[in-house]
Amino acid sequence: MTTLPPEPEPTPVPLPSSYQRVIAAYDRIAEVDRPDVWITLRAVEDALVDAKAVDERLRAGADLPLAGTLVAVADVIDVAGLPAAGEDVCCVGATSVSRLTAAGAVVIGKTNCDRFGSDLEHTQSPYGAVSAALNTERVSGSASSGAAVAVALGLVDLAVGTDTAGAGRVPASLNGIVGLKPTLGLVPKTGAAPCGGIALFARSLTLGQRALGQMTGPDGIDPLARDWPPDVRLSAGDRPRVAIPGSDTLTGLSLQSRSAFLSAVSALRASGARVETVEVSALLTVGGLIHDDGFTADRQRVAEAGMLALRMLSEYDALVLPTVAEHPSVSEALSDPDGVAKRLERFTAFVNLLDLAAVTVPSSPSDLGPYGVSVVVRPFDDQIAIDLAAVLTDEQADFPYPAPGADLVVFGAQLRGQPLNGSLVAAGARFTGLVQTGEGYRMLLLPTDPPQPGVVPVSATGEHTMLSGERWRLSPAALGAFAATLPSPFVLGRIRLENGDTPLAVLCDQAAAATATELTRYQCWRAYLRFVSTAGPRDLGRPA
Amino acid sequence: MTTLPPEPEPTPVPLPSSYQRVIAAYDRIAEVDRPDVWITLRAVEDALVDAKAVDERLRAGADLPLAGTLVAVADVIDVAGLPAAGEDVCCVGATSVSRLTAAGAVVIGKTNCDRFGSDLEHTQSPYGAVSAALNTERVSGSASSGAAVAVALGLVDLAVGTDTAGAGRVPASLNGIVGLKPTLGLVPKTGAAPCGGIALFARSLTLGQRALGQMTGPDGIDPLARDWPPDVRLSAGDRPRVAIPGSDTLTGLSLQSRSAFLSAVSALRASGARVETVEVSALLTVGGLIHDDGFTADRQRVAEAGMLALRMLSEYDALVLPTVAEHPSVSEALSDPDGVAKRLERFTAFVNLLDLAAVTVPSSPSDLGPYGVSVVVRPFDDQIAIDLAAVLTDEQADFPYPAPGADLVVFGAQLRGQPLNGSLVAAGARFTGLVQTGEGYRMLLLPTDPPQPGVVPVSATGEHTMLSGERWRLSPAALGAFAATLPSPFVLGRIRLENGDTPLAVLCDQAAAATATELTRYQCWRAYLRFVSTAGPRDLGRPA
Repeated sequence: MTTLPPEPEPTPVPLPSSYQRVIAAYDRIAEVDRPDVWITLRAVEDALVDAKAVDERLRAGADLPLAGTLVAVADVIDVAGLPAAGEDVCCVGATSVSRLTAAGAVVIGKTNCDRFGSDLEHTQSPYGAVSAALNTERVSGSASSGAAVAVALGLVDLAVGTDTAGAGRVPASLNGIVGLKPTLGLVPKTGAAPCGGIALFARSLTLGQRALGQMTGPDGIDPLARDWPPDVRLSAGDRPRVAIPGSDTLTGLSLQSRSAFLSAVSALRASGARVETVEVSALLTVGGLIHDDGFTADRQRVAEAGMLALRMLSEYDALVLPTVAEHPSVSEALSDPDGVAKRLERFTAFVNLLDLAAVTVPSSPSDLGPYGVSVVVRPFDDQIAIDLAAVLTDEQADFPYPAPGADLVVFGAQLRGQPLNGSLVAAGARFTGLVQTGEGYRMLLLPTDPPQPGVVPVSATGEHTMLSGERWRLSPAALGAFAATLPSPFVLGRIRLENGDTPLAVLCDQAAAATATELTRYQCWRAYLRFVSTAGPRDLGRPA
Repeated sequence: MTTLPPEPEPTPVPLPSSYQRVIAAYDRIAEVDRPDVWITLRAVEDALVDAKAVDERLRAGADLPLAGTLVAVADVIDVAGLPAAGEDVCCVGATSVSRLTAAGAVVIGKTNCDRFGSDLEHTQSPYGAVSAALNTERVSGSASSGAAVAVALGLVDLAVGTDTAGAGRVPASLNGIVGLKPTLGLVPKTGAAPCGGIALFARSLTLGQRALGQMTGPDGIDPLARDWPPDVRLSAGDRPRVAIPGSDTLTGLSLQSRSAFLSAVSALRASGARVETVEVSALLTVGGLIHDDGFTADRQRVAEAGMLALRMLSEYDALVLPTVAEHPSVSEALSDPDGVAKRLERFTAFVNLLDLAAVTVPSSPSDLGPYGVSVVVRPFDDQIAIDLAAVLTDEQADFPYPAPGADLVVFGAQLRGQPLNGSLVAAGARFTGLVQTGEGYRMLLLPTDPPQPGVVPVSATGEHTMLSGERWRLSPAALGAFAATLPSPFVLGRIRLENGDTPLAVLCDQAAAATATELTRYQCWRAYLRFVSTAGPRDLGRPA
């Protein structure tokens, strides 16, 4: 196929099979020659058996959203059939890993990390140090560093690690890759060594989210696992409110970290975010407590700081921070491991303590190389963190988390840019696209304030057409609150779309429509508004 | 006024003013002569100043749901203007107390309790022992015992205390009164000594709930305060599933406790509850950990037991238990305080550890005197505990908690006893009464399976009438889930009731109604169903 057909759509280039991808990965592993990354690298034959099984399941029609995705797992997390901490072979894999393989991923091996999964700086690993992916003079981060380096070197697509004070986000940042630290409990910790929570490293933000979507939800074993709440926010809208630290906080940053951060702030501003400076020193101080021996006695202080943080964050959709202030050398880390760990985790340690979620993505200013920037959000606002991070990686966040919700089609004042759109945005509703109804609907001008269209299905003869609207996704609680405050003459009912879907829509009581002015021929409320603004109010309802 | 006018409604008997109630209370305090109850009894003049202010606010038209209610407060909880722990006078009262006084309650004084609000058996109070209300040879319970005795002796209507392992529920039980231990965090702990949570003692269940309704909601100060979740269950329906312990667990009980418990179980069964025996030994064992020195190290064990408890409770609406197994004598308590405390809290200690809520109410079998029975529920199922407890106290739970929600009027298959009612009940919806619409509605027979009525407002001429339906209250998430699964041709829209209210209702798309059989003259779906069952299906839609 040397020339692609110009229309209607290009035939998708077939992906390499899982089998081919495993072979290519082992070639690359041999080529980069970084044995410090692995504690247990599986025999290529074993990985190929799994890959072949995935290819066969795919051919048999199985839905495998992660088919062909290659995964490394930090040694502190169990993988069925592989040794745990270099010792006994596990029978049962960790929930986080089993869910990936159930969705078609193939595990390549277990990576180097601190034996107990703590966030101490990596050079204390009993398996020796892992240096950074692109600079062997520099450290690769905290406990899950082997996993991060495996992704950064292109040996795998994804890696599963842990993150308490930053063990996931710090190595992601120092190795120029995406690191996701979801809300605590969303991914069960069953089968992982004691830690704050599971972290995921990914080749791209989109892949990371798609994988996390498979990993979330209680497993009935981890008592601390949590499900999405019924009022989960699915979006922060087009103009999210973003808090950033003031210049005081940035003075200690390396040139790379500082310029990566400032470049990220510019990109967020350019995308429409409303960025404001806040005081973050209290947060960072609480984070520092994690290195304190008396830490567990300080629960009250942590809880109080948590409330302050949540109160501060309640005015913002996210807090954007540098992930790390600097990139220490291996020799610095060897001479002062505690000091280096504390400095490395300065911007990350408060996050789990305060039950927040975070995503770190590489931000690439000029020629200084990628450096991590963190998007920190309230618990369960994980989708909002993804959306903001996607601005920085220039990706489209198109695999929303499997949080509960329902679709609602709107035609009038709730459309983007229209007077009542703000209430949808404030409820965390997510715009998911434009839609067109099937034939058989009328649109009428209602005498409401502000003026709104009433959409009704055709009951008998008369003018009717296909109408244009917008589709939004709402959490169950947001939909309930919307319904509870919907004024007469509007009703919520099913609408038939051109594509056959029948989502819920804001319709109008037919009795109220009986005497209203017909707007059906405009097919779209915005078209009518344009007409009014051109023709003047005298011509209301009289299309050209 | 010696003869009451027979109609239309009897003039309500005017309540005594707050002023009169305070005078009567101080007379009673002098009469019972129990100085062991009080650490600080306010001067009658001070209480009268507050009472007079309440009476004046009432006359000025203020809405004071607790006007005239007299309150005692355990000494470990701050009251503005009174000494704390017998020392300095507090400027700022505890949130729990300030909210009561803001609603019209008057504080009479502070009661005897363990100085640090722990749940250690009361005889260790530095202010001396408080004996039981009705038997001075017996102990009055745990830390908040002075507060419980003040209510039991009729000195006050309400008392605020604390409850960690049972300090609220145990003295409530031993003194024959109502004790409420709401879900942790619902009542902020601001201004209380470190404890599990706030407990409330009340003269009646109804008064206790009305007061708690004023006390719930974050205050912006207590970092552990929590709000009602958007999917809060508002009812368990007419046939709640109740778990009780097996006879093994009951063998150690005193005759009084055992017969009170069995009498409660009979009353619940008679009220329609489906009662089943479960194994509770694991719960009681976890409760025992609270007396363990290594307790704080056992968080994982507690979390795991919590998950097991929640899994067990997930099949039930409540667990009903004896509150205490026996009523120890003062001499027993003095010779073995730790042993007595452990035995007293056997059935209560697990509740806060596992983030459950509970209500204890007196159950009165034959002539043995009242004894406490506990209704234990999942977090935020507080209303369900109240409803079950109300069966035992023979009260009507008519002051539902101020949880978020919206009303929905139903006319057909969602009515009680009809095929789709189960989905409302499963969503925790609460039946709040029968309603009648205003004039101007039609009811039609839809060709759905099961057959359902379609209710539409009248658009033009034609048959119409007032229709009968049921009003239900749903949480926002339950309403959203209901809307999201509502099939065509039903719609959610506002209906006009006879009393002028315009709640949301399940209505029908008018286009679908156009060809349906008219049922309007039946005025009620149940009347139509009765007609069908009498007249047979041939006469569908043809009323007599």
